Amino acid sequence: MLEELKQRVYEANMLLPKYGLVTFTWGNVSEIDRKSGLFAIKPSGVDYDKLTPDDMVIMDLDGNRVEGKYKPSSDTPTHLELYKAFDRIGGIVHTHSSYATSWAQAGRSIPCYGTTHADYIYGEVPCVRCLTKEEIDNAYETNTGLLIIEEFKRMKKDVEATPCVLCKNHGPFAWGADAHEAVHNAVVLEEVAKMAYRAETINRDIEPAPQELQDKHYYRKHGENAYYGQN
Amino acid sequence: MLEELKQRVYEANMLLPKYGLVTFTWGNVSEIDRKSGLFAIKPSGVDYDKLTPDDMVIMDLDGNRVEGKYKPSSDTPTHLELYKAFDRIGGIVHTHSSYATSWAQAGRSIPCYGTTHADYIYGEVPCVRCLTKEEIDNAYETNTGLLIIEEFKRMKKDVEATPCVLCKNHGPFAWGADAHEAVHNAVVLEEVAKMAYRAETINRDIEPAPQELQDKHYYRKHGENAYYGQN
Amino acid sequence: MLEELKQRVYEANMLLPKYGLVTFTWGNVSEIDRKSGLFAIKPSGVDYDKLTPDDMVIMDLDGNRVEGKYKPSSDTPTHLELYKAFDRIGGIVHTHSSYATSWAQAGRSIPCYGTTHADYIYGEVPCVRCLTKEEIDNAYETNTGLLIIEEFKRMKKDVEATPCVLCKNHGPFAWGADAHEAVHNAVVLEEVAKMAYRAETINRDIEPAPQELQDKHYYRKHGENAYYGQN
Amino acid sequence: MLEELKQRVYEANMLLPKYGLVTFTWGNVSEIDRKSGLFAIKPSGVDYDKLTPDDMVIMDLDGNRVEGKYKPSSDTPTHLELYKAFDRIGGIVHTHSSYATSWAQAGRSIPCYGTTHADYIYGEVPCVRCLTKEEIDNAYETNTGLLIIEEFKRMKKDVEATPCVLCKNHGPFAWGADAHEAVHNAVVLEEVAKMAYRAETINRDIEPAPQELQDKHYYRKHGENAYYGQN
Repeated sequence: MLEELKQRVYEANMLLPKYGLVTFTWGNVSEIDRKSGLFAIKPSGVDYDKLTPDDMVIMDLDGNRVEGKYKPSSDTPTHLELYKAFDRIGGIVHTHSSYATSWAQAGRSIPCYGTTHADYIYGEVPCVRCLTKEEIDNAYETNTGLLIIEEFKRMKKDVEATPCVLCKNHGPFAWGADAHEAVHNAVVLEEVAKMAYRAETINRDIEPAPQELQDKHYYRKHGENAYYGQN
Repeated sequence: MLEELKQRVYEANMLLPKYGLVTFTWGNVSEIDRKSGLFAIKPSGVDYDKLTPDDMVIMDLDGNRVEGKYKPSSDTPTHLELYKAFDRIGGIVHTHSSYATSWAQAGRSIPCYGTTHADYIYGEVPCVRCLTKEEIDNAYETNTGLLIIEEFKRMKKDVEATPCVLCKNHGPFAWGADAHEAVHNAVVLEEVAKMAYRAETINRDIEPAPQELQDKHYYRKHGENAYYGQN
Repeated sequence: MLEELKQRVYEANMLLPKYGLVTFTWGNVSEIDRKSGLFAIKPSGVDYDKLTPDDMVIMDLDGNRVEGKYKPSSDTPTHLELYKAFDRIGGIVHTHSSYATSWAQAGRSIPCYGTTHADYIYGEVPCVRCLTKEEIDNAYETNTGLLIIEEFKRMKKDVEATPCVLCKNHGPFAWGADAHEAVHNAVVLEEVAKMAYRAETINRDIEPAPQELQDKHYYRKHGENAYYGQN
Repeated sequence: MLEELKQRVYEANMLLPKYGLVTFTWGNVSEIDRKSGLFAIKPSGVDYDKLTPDDMVIMDLDGNRVEGKYKPSSDTPTHLELYKAFDRIGGIVHTHSSYATSWAQAGRSIPCYGTTHADYIYGEVPCVRCLTKEEIDNAYETNTGLLIIEEFKRMKKDVEATPCVLCKNHGPFAWGADAHEAVHNAVVLEEVAKMAYRAETINRDIEPAPQELQDKHYYRKHGENAYYGQN
C-alpha cells in the first residue's frame, strides 16, 4: 500500500516540471492515506531529474519520519497541519509558480474574473497575511499551516470549493482529493493568476464576474447537478 | 463519410494543444456536414492525450446524439445554435486561450491595431455582454449561442469577415469554412490579442490602424481581388 | 549558383520558425546575388512544414519571375525596392514577430536602452509612418519599400548600422549582408523589442543608454577596431 | 586538472541555453582553480551548438592566455577583476537574460518581494551605475569589474550573500562557489526579476518583504543553522 502511495506521489511531483510550475527543486507534493494516517512527501532539495518513487518520505501526523532515507521537504509541517485540520483533502502541493507567486508577492487575493477561474475555484483565491516575527522565528512552517487554517475559518471558506491559497510574500499552496487533483488545481491557479494579471492590464476598471455566472460554472462541474465530463 | 468527418474533427482538436491554445480539456472543435445536417464534436472532459478519432460524438441539429459512446462537449448547444444561424460556417472552436480570454475577462473588444489582425479579421473582435441571470440559469449554453447571433445581427457583422467573438467573463469562440480554418482563426485571434495587449502598454494613446490599411490587407487575402497565396 | 542561393534562402527561411519569429506563413526571407542581379525569395503563403529549397522563387530586379513554380511572397516588391536602393545589403527578412510588431502597432520607434541593442543596432529602431490612402491603393508593397528608403535618407540613417525598421501598424523588416545575417538581425530586433517593452514598464522615467556606451558596444563588434569574436 | 576544469566550465556554459538564459552567443561562464590561479572561460562569439570542452580558454590572473586556440570572451577582464577582488567566489556568469537585463536597462535594483528571492539573495539585487565616458573609453571591461567591486564595498555587501549584480544599461553578472553555482544563481536572478516585474504590475504600492521573513528564508538555506536540503 505504501508503495502505491509513494508511486502516486512521485508521479504527481513529476507533473510539476511537466506543467512548468517549478524551477529547480522549488515545489513539493504530498498525499495522505487516511486509514493509516500516513502521508508520502517529496524529499527536501532533491532534483526532479534524479527523483525516484523510492525517494518519497513517509511521515505520520505527529511529524515522525516512518520510512525513507531522505529528510522530507522543509514545508512538511505545513502539509501536516493542513491534513490535520482539513479532513476532506487528500493531497497538497506547494510551488513557486511564476504568476501565482507574483500575486502572493503583491499581497493581493485573485478576484474571479471569469469562467476559467469559476470552473474550479469558488470565489477569489485568498491571499493570507505575512506571519509575524514571532510566528516566523518559531515553527515557521507549522505556523504557515495554522494561519491558513485560521484564515479559512475566519473567512468561512470551504476548502473543497477554494482549493488553493496564496501566502503573502511567499507563494501558493493548492490541494485536492488526492495528489493528482492537488496538482491539477495548482495548474488551474497558475493559469487563473496569469489571466487575471493580463485582464487587469487590459482594463483598469475591471470588475469580478457576476455571481450568477460564477455559480453556474462552478456547479456545472461540481456537486450533484454537475454535467461537465463523462460522469 | 462520418468516419472522415470524425477524423478531420479529431485532427482539428489535436491542433489546439499543438498551438498552445488549451490547458487540460479546456477547448473543443466541431465541424458540420451540411448535406446530412450532422456535426462531429469533441466529447466532454476527455484528455487530449487519450483522444482518438472514434471518440468524436456525432450530433444532429436538434441536439440528438446520433453516434458516439461519450457525452458531447458541454458547449455543444452553443455550436448548434451557431450552425443553425450562420449557414456559411462549417467549423467552430471554443478555447480558453490565454490572451483572448484575458480580453474577454476585461470585457473589451479587441481594436484592429495592425495588419496581422486585418489580414484575417475585418474590424474589431467584438466582446459580447455577459448573459443575464435568467439566461444563465436556463439553457446557458444555448443562450450563449443566441446572444452571439443577436449581437452579430445588431452590429451588422458578417460572420465570414469577423470569424471570432469574445464572450465577456468567459472566453473566445472562432469559426471558419471547416474545423481546420476555425482553428486557424483561433490561433490568429490569440496572436492578435497578445499583440494588442502589448501595443496598448507601449503606447497608451494608441489608435486603431487607418481604415484604408485594414481594407487593403483584408482584401489582399479575401474576395475576388485577393492576391496572397498560390490561388 | 542559383541552386546554392535557393538552398541558402531556404535555410534562412527555416530559421524563422526555429527562433519563434513566425506563426503560420507570416514571414519571408530573400537573398540577392549581386553579380547576376537575381534574388531568391520564399513563395507566397506556403507552409514552412512543406517548404523545400526548390520552392524558392528566383526574381530579377525588374520584378520578373525568372524561375520557380510558385508565385513569390506578396511582399516581393518591398524587397526589390530595398535591394535597388541599398546596394550594400544582400538579404532581407519580413516577419510579424510578436514584440517588434507590437511596437509597430503602437507606432513608436524603439529607443536604445542598453548594450544588447547597441551591440547590433546603432541608435533607435525607427518606426516609419503609415502609408497614405493613395500609397496603399496603388502599388502598396512597392510604396512600403520606397517609404523606408525615403525615411532612411531623411533621417540620414546608415542601412548597415541600422539593419531594421518598423512599419507603423504593420511590422518589422530587417536586413544584412546575406539572408542569414538578416535573420540574425530580426532575432536581435525581437529580443530588443521585448526588453525595451519590459524596461519601460519597470521604470516609466527611463532614459536611453548614454551615447558613449552605445558607441562602445557598437564599435566593439563593428568596424576596423572591433574586438568581439574570433576575427 | 585543467581538463576537468574545462569540462566543468563547458558544462556550465551549456546550461545557459538549457535554462533559456541566452540568445545566440550572449553569455559566458568561467571557473577558477584557486591553487594554480588559472581560470577557464568560454571563447568569444562561438556558437553554443558548436562548443566543445576543448574550446574553453585558460587564462591567468594577469590576463594572459595560458591555453586555448580561441580568443577568450570579450568580458574576460571583468571576470578577472572579480576573481582578484572576491577570493571566496569560484565561478562567474554573464548573460543578457531577458528580465534581469530589462531591470538593468531600467536602471533599478530589484527589491526583495518574497521568499523565492530571499532563499538565495540576501536583500535587493543592486543595480550599479553606468560607467563614465572615461571609464568606457579606456579598459571598459576592466572598469566594469572595478565598479562592481567598489560598489559592493561602498554598500557593504557580502558577495556570498548577494551573488549577483545588475550593470545599468547592460545586464547581469552572477557568481558562486563554482561555475555551476554561478549559473544556478543566474537562473534564480532571472526568475526573481520576472516575478518582481509582475508583482509591481499587480500592486503599484507593493512593499518589500518584511526583514524577518527575508532573514528566515535566507538562513533556512545558508549558514550553520540551515535546514533545507539533505546536508
